[in-house]
Amino acid sequence: MLRIVQSALKARGVKVWTGHDHGINDKLRLADIAVALGGDGTMLRAARLLAPHSVPLLGVNSGGLGFLSGTDASEFKRYCDAILRGQFFLEERWMIEVEVQRRGRRIFGPNIALNDCVIRCADQARAISLRARSAERFVADYFGDGLIVSTPTGSTAYALAASGPIVDPSLDVLLIAPICPHTLTQRPLIIPASEPLSIRLTVRHPHDSAPKVLMSLDGQLGSSLQIDDEVRISRYERPFKLLLNPKRSYYEVLRRKLKWGER
Amino acid sequence: MLRIVQSALKARGVKVWTGHDHGINDKLRLADIAVALGGDGTMLRAARLLAPHSVPLLGVNSGGLGFLSGTDASEFKRYCDAILRGQFFLEERWMIEVEVQRRGRRIFGPNIALNDCVIRCADQARAISLRARSAERFVADYFGDGLIVSTPTGSTAYALAASGPIVDPSLDVLLIAPICPHTLTQRPLIIPASEPLSIRLTVRHPHDSAPKVLMSLDGQLGSSLQIDDEVRISRYERPFKLLLNPKRSYYEVLRRKLKWGER
Amino acid sequence: MLRIVQSALKARGVKVWTGHDHGINDKLRLADIAVALGGDGTMLRAARLLAPHSVPLLGVNSGGLGFLSGTDASEFKRYCDAILRGQFFLEERWMIEVEVQRRGRRIFGPNIALNDCVIRCADQARAISLRARSAERFVADYFGDGLIVSTPTGSTAYALAASGPIVDPSLDVLLIAPICPHTLTQRPLIIPASEPLSIRLTVRHPHDSAPKVLMSLDGQLGSSLQIDDEVRISRYERPFKLLLNPKRSYYEVLRRKLKWGER
Amino acid sequence: MLRIVQSALKARGVKVWTGHDHGINDKLRLADIAVALGGDGTMLRAARLLAPHSVPLLGVNSGGLGFLSGTDASEFKRYCDAILRGQFFLEERWMIEVEVQRRGRRIFGPNIALNDCVIRCADQARAISLRARSAERFVADYFGDGLIVSTPTGSTAYALAASGPIVDPSLDVLLIAPICPHTLTQRPLIIPASEPLSIRLTVRHPHDSAPKVLMSLDGQLGSSLQIDDEVRISRYERPFKLLLNPKRSYYEVLRRKLKWGER
Repeated sequence: MLRIVQSALKARGVKVWTGHDHGINDKLRLADIAVALGGDGTMLRAARLLAPHSVPLLGVNSGGLGFLSGTDASEFKRYCDAILRGQFFLEERWMIEVEVQRRGRRIFGPNIALNDCVIRCADQARAISLRARSAERFVADYFGDGLIVSTPTGSTAYALAASGPIVDPSLDVLLIAPICPHTLTQRPLIIPASEPLSIRLTVRHPHDSAPKVLMSLDGQLGSSLQIDDEVRISRYERPFKLLLNPKRSYYEVLRRKLKWGER
Repeated sequence: MLRIVQSALKARGVKVWTGHDHGINDKLRLADIAVALGGDGTMLRAARLLAPHSVPLLGVNSGGLGFLSGTDASEFKRYCDAILRGQFFLEERWMIEVEVQRRGRRIFGPNIALNDCVIRCADQARAISLRARSAERFVADYFGDGLIVSTPTGSTAYALAASGPIVDPSLDVLLIAPICPHTLTQRPLIIPASEPLSIRLTVRHPHDSAPKVLMSLDGQLGSSLQIDDEVRISRYERPFKLLLNPKRSYYEVLRRKLKWGER
Repeated sequence: MLRIVQSALKARGVKVWTGHDHGINDKLRLADIAVALGGDGTMLRAARLLAPHSVPLLGVNSGGLGFLSGTDASEFKRYCDAILRGQFFLEERWMIEVEVQRRGRRIFGPNIALNDCVIRCADQARAISLRARSAERFVADYFGDGLIVSTPTGSTAYALAASGPIVDPSLDVLLIAPICPHTLTQRPLIIPASEPLSIRLTVRHPHDSAPKVLMSLDGQLGSSLQIDDEVRISRYERPFKLLLNPKRSYYEVLRRKLKWGER
Repeated sequence: MLRIVQSALKARGVKVWTGHDHGINDKLRLADIAVALGGDGTMLRAARLLAPHSVPLLGVNSGGLGFLSGTDASEFKRYCDAILRGQFFLEERWMIEVEVQRRGRRIFGPNIALNDCVIRCADQARAISLRARSAERFVADYFGDGLIVSTPTGSTAYALAASGPIVDPSLDVLLIAPICPHTLTQRPLIIPASEPLSIRLTVRHPHDSAPKVLMSLDGQLGSSLQIDDEVRISRYERPFKLLLNPKRSYYEVLRRKLKWGER
């Protein structure tokens, strides 16, 4: 697939570097667009690399759901000229920036994520307590398997499995979805993304043994958490730029990939 | 209760009109604040009356959940001076404006609502088909008992009973929550409020008999719908201004009134 | 379709009556099997007619989901000999018997239903209070749009739209699923079918105006309810006998018709 | 608390052994009742110990939810005579027996559990594939965080957090509740407990790396699973006997402990 894409681009006089080329990070500054070959995992990794440089990404899907892909290998050649002529739609998606504080010191981050920040207990049959605050106001205490803090882009990823709503990706909101809450009264919550969110790992009973808790960004990088650690989540300052096929709306992609609303 | 509120206000030299006074609609233009005595139903009615005049409302709760109330009768006297001195928090909530089109002619509205626009089948054991479009783009076809289009304020009302998420009232979004969808794949959806939404009553099979379908705003005023009628929903241009006790955050109200997140 | 089925049966020397024949109810006693042509609504009506006579039913599906159908028109001829030779699987499904009591007198029923008994408010924006008792023990108070009391067969019908679980049709249980409950804490409940269930329409506040409430069986026959009316639901003494294609399991039908578990 | 219970029993001439006594397992055969002091975790452990000997258990709750407890420490003395006179209600709860097969060999069990058997992925951001069969018939393929197979007793434990229904503990059914399913179409399922259930860990793509998967019984004992391992679950032959206060129904306990149905 790499070869198809490369030769199609070179045939049109485009200078192509690959991720294996020497000094690729420096070259990102010179790039007009980046192309990622793979599935959604590849796209998520690419987003973290590209967003700081404002380089737009075209995803070429190879199997998997390919939610974020603009095209697939078989279509790539067909669309190549349209893409180079800028006829693909440039959609901005915002990302979250996350760091972890332990006793006043930063022990993780800041790192960025396109989909979500997941805080989850890794022990079997153990619930954890998490306290959410938005812009210094107390939001809620959560008790259960954990919590997903998701961008609109991430609302169709893991948050959907935790019964979260689907959120239009243009919206400037965060979705907080509890994972298997041990209370009958919890519900997903939509809050402004413009305000910093803090999630603190707390204890219900002072004598409880420490649970094993993991925080992960887009399921790809993360940190283990201790009691009283605070995960700070805010909107990342630069948008992630995504090249999408103008012929397919967000809702069409949902129907095709998720079978959303299908009978 | 009316007497308590009136005498407290008059004792402070405030000019008071009541809803029964002659020409009260004209006097709204002169009013600095309005006071509604009752529950949430009363508040919803008052919101429709006051929002066009930009008069802020203080709700004095008398039984019921009182989600939108700033105080209750027993506290009113205590807070009276603070309210008059402007020490209560003025929160702006946005409303929806709704009209119904039938064969190119408007048959209902425009009317406004603070919570929601509900489209529901009134026949027992009958499902209806609804097609949603946002800003002229196709969103989804729904098949089931009906649909709730809710403001953030309405997310804790009927939409919550239909498994919708809780939405921070400051957000500029609409929530679409299907009522008892007859497909396993439906989910609540959050879309931008800035774009007009259209819901059209459609038919699945051309020979089906016409169902009895009702559209209602805040459960208080409405219209019956025929096949092909289109309900148009957009953001109302003027905000509804609500006076709230600065000591109670939105999330505290959720916990106290809904027992949200409680064990 | 009627002609195809009739001629296929007559060609095999089977005596055929149709529903329009004179004295058809008497002839049911003589029948070995009944054939219903249509969708699930037709099957539900046939079940009520046939169960008292213990006549097994073969459903020949013509459009619609056809959950209860054993075959469709195109397959009927192919399977005809197998059916007559008794090679189709005879599955027993149990039904509910329902009556309504008002001030000590029966005002509806007893009537039977294969899927469900639905009690629902017909007013827009009105919640009703229902009190459930099983075998004279208090079960729960419900407040919301209404309640579905479903057999296992009905668990894939309306109860599924109300977030109920799927229940294996061989089980001797009742499913109680609240419709849009106005409390965060309600959940579907599975109870023994062997014990009589009572649902009483109650009031939350003595001065509330009377809501318009409907009770319906399989969405096909019903009664309006007044405050204090009691709906009594018990297991009907005779099973409904259904002829099913032995090659298709219950779970396969779920997957094919509901897309249950599909990606 | 132990002292209170012991002295109350001894004062009534009851012979008391404690779990620390030598040869306690042998003495279980001689015991008329067992008393467990603690929360639900203690009760679950006691159930596994006592069920094989058919010794009824009285749970004396000390903090926690105490779903299975018959009394608490403060009430124990008051109820002591009633308990010894057999005036407490003896409720039979059935348990599951679980073993794990790997390439034709048993690598875990048989062990028993009162609440549930949970199969869950321990890796962050990894979904697993599980194939369920009941009595050799294919039921469904699950893709997500995992699966809970629960007894009716366990339906108010972890299964409830995974959106399962509440199941009356007298019923002879199993509840299968998916944990965060990655498909929109999954639903909890109720099947007969009389038929053996098999859950096999499968792979979606042959080249996927092996996930870390754990199976646990009542969250207390378990095993790690490899691809193609099969978890076999059947009804344990002996009931677990629970002594309960006759004055409190199951539904009352749900309301008091879970706040089920509360506003």
